[in-house]
Formats: sequence, C-alpha cells, structure tokens
Amino acid sequence: MENRFLKSPTSPIEIVAGMTCSELLEGLEGCSFQGRQLARAAKIWTEALDRDIRVWLGLAGAMVPAGMRKLVVALMKHGMIDILVSTGANLYHDYVETVGFPHYIGSPHVDDRELREAKIDRIYDTFADERVFIEQDHLIGAWAVETLEERPYTTREFLKLLGEEAARHSKGEEGILSTAAALDIPVFCPAIGDSSIGIALAETERKVLFDLIGDVEETARLAAEKASMVIYVGGGTPKNFIQQTEVTNIVRNRNVRGHEYAIQLVVAAPQWGGLSGCTFEEAVSWGKIAEDSQNATVLCDATIALPVVAAAVMTRREGKKRHGM
Amino acid sequence: MENRFLKSPTSPIEIVAGMTCSELLEGLEGCSFQGRQLARAAKIWTEALDRDIRVWLGLAGAMVPAGMRKLVVALMKHGMIDILVSTGANLYHDYVETVGFPHYIGSPHVDDRELREAKIDRIYDTFADERVFIEQDHLIGAWAVETLEERPYTTREFLKLLGEEAARHSKGEEGILSTAAALDIPVFCPAIGDSSIGIALAETERKVLFDLIGDVEETARLAAEKASMVIYVGGGTPKNFIQQTEVTNIVRNRNVRGHEYAIQLVVAAPQWGGLSGCTFEEAVSWGKIAEDSQNATVLCDATIALPVVAAAVMTRREGKKRHGM
Amino acid sequence: MENRFLKSPTSPIEIVAGMTCSELLEGLEGCSFQGRQLARAAKIWTEALDRDIRVWLGLAGAMVPAGMRKLVVALMKHGMIDILVSTGANLYHDYVETVGFPHYIGSPHVDDRELREAKIDRIYDTFADERVFIEQDHLIGAWAVETLEERPYTTREFLKLLGEEAARHSKGEEGILSTAAALDIPVFCPAIGDSSIGIALAETERKVLFDLIGDVEETARLAAEKASMVIYVGGGTPKNFIQQTEVTNIVRNRNVRGHEYAIQLVVAAPQWGGLSGCTFEEAVSWGKIAEDSQNATVLCDATIALPVVAAAVMTRREGKKRHGM
Amino acid sequence: MENRFLKSPTSPIEIVAGMTCSELLEGLEGCSFQGRQLARAAKIWTEALDRDIRVWLGLAGAMVPAGMRKLVVALMKHGMIDILVSTGANLYHDYVETVGFPHYIGSPHVDDRELREAKIDRIYDTFADERVFIEQDHLIGAWAVETLEERPYTTREFLKLLGEEAARHSKGEEGILSTAAALDIPVFCPAIGDSSIGIALAETERKVLFDLIGDVEETARLAAEKASMVIYVGGGTPKNFIQQTEVTNIVRNRNVRGHEYAIQLVVAAPQWGGLSGCTFEEAVSWGKIAEDSQNATVLCDATIALPVVAAAVMTRREGKKRHGM
Repeated sequence: MENRFLKSPTSPIEIVAGMTCSELLEGLEGCSFQGRQLARAAKIWTEALDRDIRVWLGLAGAMVPAGMRKLVVALMKHGMIDILVSTGANLYHDYVETVGFPHYIGSPHVDDRELREAKIDRIYDTFADERVFIEQDHLIGAWAVETLEERPYTTREFLKLLGEEAARHSKGEEGILSTAAALDIPVFCPAIGDSSIGIALAETERKVLFDLIGDVEETARLAAEKASMVIYVGGGTPKNFIQQTEVTNIVRNRNVRGHEYAIQLVVAAPQWGGLSGCTFEEAVSWGKIAEDSQNATVLCDATIALPVVAAAVMTRREGKKRHGM
Repeated sequence: MENRFLKSPTSPIEIVAGMTCSELLEGLEGCSFQGRQLARAAKIWTEALDRDIRVWLGLAGAMVPAGMRKLVVALMKHGMIDILVSTGANLYHDYVETVGFPHYIGSPHVDDRELREAKIDRIYDTFADERVFIEQDHLIGAWAVETLEERPYTTREFLKLLGEEAARHSKGEEGILSTAAALDIPVFCPAIGDSSIGIALAETERKVLFDLIGDVEETARLAAEKASMVIYVGGGTPKNFIQQTEVTNIVRNRNVRGHEYAIQLVVAAPQWGGLSGCTFEEAVSWGKIAEDSQNATVLCDATIALPVVAAAVMTRREGKKRHGM
Repeated sequence: MENRFLKSPTSPIEIVAGMTCSELLEGLEGCSFQGRQLARAAKIWTEALDRDIRVWLGLAGAMVPAGMRKLVVALMKHGMIDILVSTGANLYHDYVETVGFPHYIGSPHVDDRELREAKIDRIYDTFADERVFIEQDHLIGAWAVETLEERPYTTREFLKLLGEEAARHSKGEEGILSTAAALDIPVFCPAIGDSSIGIALAETERKVLFDLIGDVEETARLAAEKASMVIYVGGGTPKNFIQQTEVTNIVRNRNVRGHEYAIQLVVAAPQWGGLSGCTFEEAVSWGKIAEDSQNATVLCDATIALPVVAAAVMTRREGKKRHGM
Repeated sequence: MENRFLKSPTSPIEIVAGMTCSELLEGLEGCSFQGRQLARAAKIWTEALDRDIRVWLGLAGAMVPAGMRKLVVALMKHGMIDILVSTGANLYHDYVETVGFPHYIGSPHVDDRELREAKIDRIYDTFADERVFIEQDHLIGAWAVETLEERPYTTREFLKLLGEEAARHSKGEEGILSTAAALDIPVFCPAIGDSSIGIALAETERKVLFDLIGDVEETARLAAEKASMVIYVGGGTPKNFIQQTEVTNIVRNRNVRGHEYAIQLVVAAPQWGGLSGCTFEEAVSWGKIAEDSQNATVLCDATIALPVVAAAVMTRREGKKRHGM
C-alpha cells in the first residue's frame, strides 16, 4: 500500500509520571491538531535560537495580569527573545507589579456593581485595586514631567526610562520593563496612548510627545538589519507592528525576505478576517514573512500555550549560548 | 405552575417571504442565544437615538476591505453615529477606496507565494493590489510633508485633513474619512503608526509628530461632556480607547457615570481574558460603563451582525430626527 | 494593471431603510469574510431548489429551545427541505412545545442553585419547567408501551408515530415532528437514546428497541437514489450521519458522487480537528461531497445565520414550485 | 488597603529548565484565565482519585486519530478512569490502530481531490488509508454476523466483544477497547450507528440490533450507585449521555445529588447555547451536577489540555492506590 500521502505514521503520545514539558511536546510531535502545532512551535523556537537571528516577541492580551510577567523576564534573561513589542496594558501592569502591587485571584462569577463600589477592577477572573492604579498614574505622570526633556520620545526611549524608574522603586521584584532596561532590550508600544500609561500622561501639566513614526522607522531598520524570528502571543497591535516592519521595507525598496521563523499563540480564527487571526500563509502574500519560513500557528489561550512552550525551549536550550553572545 | 423564573415564554420566530431585516430582528427578540442578542442590539441602538446622547463607534478588524465602507458612511449621514475611533488599517483602506482603488474578491484557498510574485496582498478572502498601496503611501507621505505645519497633530486633526485630501482625489466615491470631514464628525486613531498610514509617514524627509496624549485628553473630555452610547465592532484599540475615556475621567476625579448604552459585535470570547472579548459586566467594575446601562453583546462576525443591525435601526429610525438636530 | 487575481472588485454593501433579508444578502455577495459566506449560502440553497434533488437538513444544537421550531416547520411546508436528521433534544423539545408547553426567556446571569430549587432547567439564556418535562417523559413512555408493536423500530418509523401523537395532543401548535408526519418527510435521530426521548423510554416496563442499523441502511439508500443538497445547522451526529451516507455507499461499492450542494452554519472551527467543524474540502477526501460541489461554510451562531438565510431563500423562491412537485 | 475581594495575590509562574508538567500546573494555579483552569482541572482530578468514587470519561472529537489512544489506555491502566463513554469514531479508529493500521501525519493544506483520487481520508491534518477502512469494515461486519447471538446487545456488551476481537488481531498494540475489555471497564457508545461501526454493520446479511435504551438504564443505575467524577473531553453525545444519567435518576425519583467532581476540556463556548459548550453552572440547574461540586472548565483543544493534565495527575498519583483497590 505504498502511497505518497502516507509517509509518516502518527505516533500516539505516551504519558508517564514525572514527564517534563519538553518530553510532553516531543510526544505531541507525532500527534495531531493543536497539540502537534504546540510541539512544532517549541521545535521552531529552539532551532531558531541556534541561528544568528533576532527574536521579536509581540505581546498582546492581558498577559501580565494573567501571571506571565516573570516568564517574559525569564525569556529575556535566558536570551530567548531580543526585542519586545507590547500593548500598553501589559507594560503598565508590569510596572505596577514591579513596584510592589500584585494582582489578585478573582472570579468572573461576581457582582461587578459590588466591585465598582469597592473600587476593584476586574480582568476576567483577576482583580486589581483601583486606588493603586490611580496613585501610580499620578506618580508616573509626575515622574514624566519632572524628568523628561522637552522633546518627542520614541516609545522605545520612553519605556527604557520607565523601566529604570520601575527598577528604582522595586523592592526586589523583577519586571519586564526593568529587566529590558537593564539588558538593553528594546521595548516598543505602538498604541501607548491607549493604556493607563496614556491616562497617566494625560493628567500632566506638560504634555509628553511620542515620536510614533520614529518607532516605525526604527523597527523597520532593525528588521532589515538582521534575519528574524517572530513570536506572536495574541494578535493586536504588537502582531501588526512587527509584521509591518517588512511591509515598510518593501515600500522603501529595501531588500528584505520576510521573517524566517514564526510562531503564534492566538485565539482568533483566520475566518474572521482580522489581523489578529491571520495565518502565516496570508503574511507571505504581503512579504511579511519569508516564503520558506519555518512557522507554526497554535490556536490556544496563551496562558496555557506560552508556559508549556517556554518551559520546553528553556529545557532544550539549557547550557547553550546564543550565536555570537 | 406559577414561577418567578417563568414569566415570559419564548416566541419562535416566523419566517415569511419578503421579510425585512427589522422584522427579522423583531422576530428574534423572543428567541435565544446570539439571535436574541442581535435583536437586543438593534433595539438598544434605536432607543438610544431618541436620547440626547453621543454615539461612539469603535471600528476594529478589517471592516473596510470587507465591504463596510459605505455602511459606515451611511451611519454618519443618517445621524446614527457621532464619533469614530478606528484602527489605522480601516482608515487607510477607506482612503484608498475613496480615491478610486477597490479591493477584489479573492479566496483563502490560494497559493500565497503566487500572490507574492504577483504583488497581490491578501486579507483572508479578499485581494488588493500592492502597487496601488505603495503608490498611495508615497502620495500620502508627500502630501503630509507639503501641507502639514511644523507642530504635533492629534490624530483627530490629522485625519480631518486626510479626509479632505481624500475628497479632493475622489471621483464620486464617498468615504469614511471624507464624509466625516464634511460632516465634522471627529475620527480618532489611537494606533495610527501601526498601519499603512504610519508606513507612509515613515518615508518622509520631515517627520510627522502625533499628539497621542492630546487624543486621550480630548476623548475623555468629550465623554465627560455628554451621555453616551458606545458601539464596538470588534475589540482592539478602538474598544479600549473608548472604554478608557471614563477611566481617565475617574482618575481625574471628574464626575462620570460610564457609558449608558452599549452594544458590541465581537468574536473574541471573554474566557480568553483579553480586552477585545471582555463583557460589559466587567466594564462596570472599572466604571467604564454605567451600572444600569442598556447593553448587548453579540458574539458574531461583524460582517454579518453589523449590516443586519444597521439595516434594522435605519428602518426603525426612518423619517425621525435626532435629538436637538 | 491587468492581473489574473484582480478580476472582480468587491462591492461595499449599501444599507437602506426597509431593506429585506434577501436584499441584505445580495449586498453581502460583494463583501468579504463570513458575510460573503452567508450570502453564498442563500444563493446555493436557492439554486439547488431549482434542481431535481433532495435537500437534507442536519439539525444539531438546541435549536428548538432557541426558538427555531416554526422556522423548521416553514422549511418543510415551503418545500425547502426533504429529509431531517436531528439530535433527540431538538425533537423532544419540539414535542413538548407542540403539545403546549413553551420555553421561557431566561438569563445566563442567574444563580443556578435557585433554579434547581425551583425545578427550572436552564439552556444558556432560556428556561424550562422541569415538572413539565417529567410529566411528558411519563406520557411518552406510557404511549410507547401502549401503542408500539413488539418489534424494533427505525428512528424514522418511531418518530413518525411520535409526530402523529404530538399532533393529537396539539391545540393548534405546529411542530417539526407533527408537520413531518403530516407531510411524510422522514426524520432520523441517530442518537435517540441520548436525549429525553431515551430517558422517557428507559422508564417503561417494556423496553423499546431501535433498529439503528436500519437507519444507516435507509439513509444510505436514500442518498444513493437521488442527487442531494445538505444543510448542516451545527455539527454533531446529524452532520456526521448525513455525511456517512456516502461513505456507506462507497464501502458498498455503490456508484455515488457525493452531495452536490452543501452549506453549513457552524461555530466549530476546523482547527480543532473535530467532525463538527470540518470543512467541505475535507469531506471531498472521503467522498462525502462531490468534488465539484457548490458549497459554503458560515462560521456563525445558527440562531442568527439560519433565520437570515431562510428568509432570503423563501423570498427568492416565492411562488415557485419545486422540481416535479 | 484591606478588602474582601483582595485576599489572594496572583503568583506569576516561574519557568525553569527541566520543569515537569505537574510543576507547570502548580505554577499556573496562581495565574489566570485558561491556564488557571487547566491547573484546577489537574488538582480536582487528583483529589477525586483519593475518594471512593467512579470516574467517567466522555470522549468526543477525533481523539484517537489525533494520537490520544495510548493516553486513554494509560488512564485505564493507572486507575484514573473507570467508565468510558465515547463517539463511535474514536472506538472505530482505536480498533483499526490496535489491529495494526496507523494514521499518518498529513496537512490541511492539500488538494483534497488528489486525496480522493488516492483514496486517502483526511481528518484535518491527519491522513488515513481508505482501503484499510473498507477492509476492516468488511471484517467487523463478518465477525459480528458469525459470532453475535440473535438478540439485542447494549453497546457496552457489544464493545466488550469488539475489544476482545481487537485483542485477538493485535500484534502487541494496546488499544482502548482491548484494554477496557481486559480490565472490565465498561465502554458505552450512545450513537454507535453514527460511525464506521454502523457502516460496517449495515453491510451484513443479518442485522445487528442495539439495545440503546438498555444503555440509558445501565448508565443511570451506575450513576445512582456511587459518587462520581466526570471528565468531558469535548462535548457531543458522550458529554450529554453522562450528564443525562442524573436526569434519568431524577425522572425516576431516585435520590441523586449530581456528579461531585467535574472537569471539561472543550472548545465550544457557552454563548452558542449548545450542550457541548454548556457550563457546569447550567448543569446544576438540571441536577446533572452537585450544587457544591468541585469543577473546572478549560476552553482549550483537548490535544493540548488532556496530555498536560493527564501527565500532571499521573505524576501526583505515582505509587498511590485508588480507594478500595
């Protein structure tokens, strides 16, 4: 029964006690559906780290309130990502956690009017203290007025300073912004006004100006400089902003070939037509990704997919150095 | 069998030939699941238009490439919306369609490498001519350099000028930006750099500066001024940006009560924890929406939900004037 | 800019007051994403009704509690479907509504322990009286024992008798089972034990036997006899059972070409790998559907998609007779 | 800032090299969204195994073609489940794999007409040899005719015999049916006709009769006998059939309190109103689940969620015996 379509039998996963996340994903390589995609995502990320490339992480959703702050910190410290593009919300919540104010275990089955009364803000099953947010908004606003020069800042410049400020106020907590600042990992936030950082700055007597277009230029140049892997945790502006680096380079007639390694952990389906759920195949038509890229799309909540994949890649990379580092 | 839970029997919908969208939604009011929500959305929107309120539309997704440009134009011309917050992509594609370049019927079942070769950009099942985009990027960039003053612009200011520019180049096509400019409807774009508008401006010799924080201030002030209805077509930055107007006002100790009428046509589920899928109940905890708001969430692709609801509301409003207009 | 990929421009929908569902879907034919699919579904169904074919409807989900009973009745009376395959739940709830007991408007935001206390059964946002169900279970069980012969029944035979029984107890309400019985439209239920019909029959002193394999044979024979259109409202056993008719015919070496027209209104995504969400392309590999079939998949809650499509098709068919009828 | 809603801070997960699945889920207990739910599912399952209860597994979707056969076998051999309710497809594919015919790694990006030509059946990203299926259908049919008595069989009786038959033809492969038969674990299949088992039996000269209602009775009795945990992998008939055991007992006035432990790994959202996505809260209203049950719903593809949870529970149970075994 020789048949060109029947080359590799699937290999049912075997579950054993004490199994590591890395072993689990090895087992899922021979399985199907999203489990196989998850396994491929870890494989691609691991392989990419052996190449002389830059790894871009796009971080959407409410990943920091969801408990993913230290994971992202670990990705930076282990050399698993090189550039971060994030929503403002993730960075604001990172700042607040870093300076000492945690989120709280909550529930979606609650009377939100009681939460309003108690000044508790809900993020699905997670609670936060609104008074903390208001206080931090004031402090961030005051810090910006006192310390920023009278000139436009790219979000990358601004967020480095904010990361240093977070480090100054931290009592031992490591944060995404503070770690990125310490390691000189660039952090971009294309919709920075659309977050509590924007709210904080809208209060100030002196208006902070962002050089948004400067971010567009800088990211495009970074993408043109060196081969790249992209990791999209959710869609939104981080995914689009990283994708558009290559479009910008095409418009400028720069010689680019698109991102060469790509994984995405998303919940949006391509059938909705939105950017958040679009496939890497679609990205090929725009030149956003290389025609022969290694890529995997995992349709799964990132609070599940990201920890499993990160644990597997970290395990497989243990003791290895990144190219040229 | 008197029972406090069994007050209103459902009423199975009756389908008849020649049925209007408005009649269909009346029929769905007595049904269940998302059909009932769709019917409620139309009812709430219709009722809100009798009140002296402002209607905010948040427009995410790729609604213009999906054929929703004229629908949004009609919403503005019929006084069904008063303020627009959009992704840059929708506004860029609106500009391009308005100046004469359509999108094309395509397919998701296609070899994207062939599209790349032919310089066709794919948006799920829709195609566009990349050469048109590149040319328009150059033209928008050149126009900006020639005409803009040496000062930061809020996106609302910039988009009004871009709408007027679109009108100048249009050969009869009505667009969202050009109509908004003509009717003096404010249009905001919180992530304007994260779109082909950003790409267009990144090429220019003189850098355009956006006063993002000015947008935050202005939208918060607009929200504090007058009662409001919000309509979220998709989530993303438009939904968050409109929601955060009330949070900004809370941080500033302004006396606000949250948006009073609210509908959303979304595909993101609340279980993912992201802002795009969050419920109006969750929004109550933040003060983003009034505790006693009229609201409906429809879990449905907006290319289905929006036309049905808009047609029903337009039918029910026929001949009526808006409050104070 | 001649280009083989850019043949048909999209055509943005124009919304006008008084618009019918049929006009709405005509407008969506030139749009994108699921709106275009919805328009195609109506077009395919309309065209198929001009052919000498049988139309099979697979009805999963809780469509009857959701208010879709009269719609399905209308489809039968207007000659828009010829064979029904359903979950047991839809048929049981149809029976109960037909004999006079409605469902009730409810809410998902309720304390279900209070509902339990009050003997109210909840189906998402819809309530039902548990005492009615228990009483009807007893009556159906008693009727079966009294009237059924001592032989196995196919579900088609059994459901025809149950439809006649529903008609006897109805005070003017038209039901799916009673209308199907009157019009001699076959109704199959491949998982009849997995429903309150099964619960009702499990109480009886004499056990009712179903000839399940007889249903498999009969449906396969019906599929082999005549060209077919299939309509899947949700997935589940109805979709699989209709699909497997062609597989059965292939196993038996009957000369079949697969269903020729096919639409599905589903919420399951193909990426999960389950049958409920599988594409018509996948069905081609199995021979379940013709290689050159006309088909459309609409990713949308059926309580929205089905009424819109049914209204449009009914409008377009007005006054027309089915082939050979 | 004492506040009754702010009792337990979230605890961001820390990722380390060599991390086990069990450690990963411990780390996710302090996080949010579906990650937290996944952690809770493992915790509940682990705790339930210390109680004197029966564990029911409902297995929908195409879990066996997806590579989950050996995992389910391991659950049985490690005493982690006691009763299985499955779709026919899972059991048929289990039979075929057990007697020596694997599935194959495939792709969803393929021309399904070529697959049809080559007689390859596709299940999303997985391929199978249609000729094998046809041959096995004939063999199963012949075996049934030769060996079954002239009486109706419950699916539990039939599947035990089929499991023994699988064991006879296996060359060392352990299967779900063969292991269940060896360990005397009951397996039910409420829609057995709706699968290739049904197709196989539809060919035979002598018709096999299933006592479906007998299955309903037997499962209800099993549920009334002893406290229970339920695990739903996907929804469909297995979930409904297990749920309805308690409804049957309520109709019969048996004193039941609903399943006491419950986890579900599903992709259907409750907002669609279908049984597959319904919440455990909704199940409380029907008495299907205990009012004070321990339960967790994980919105995630089971090919990811099930292996992670199973590995964690197996790790935590290592060396422990089940109650009374």
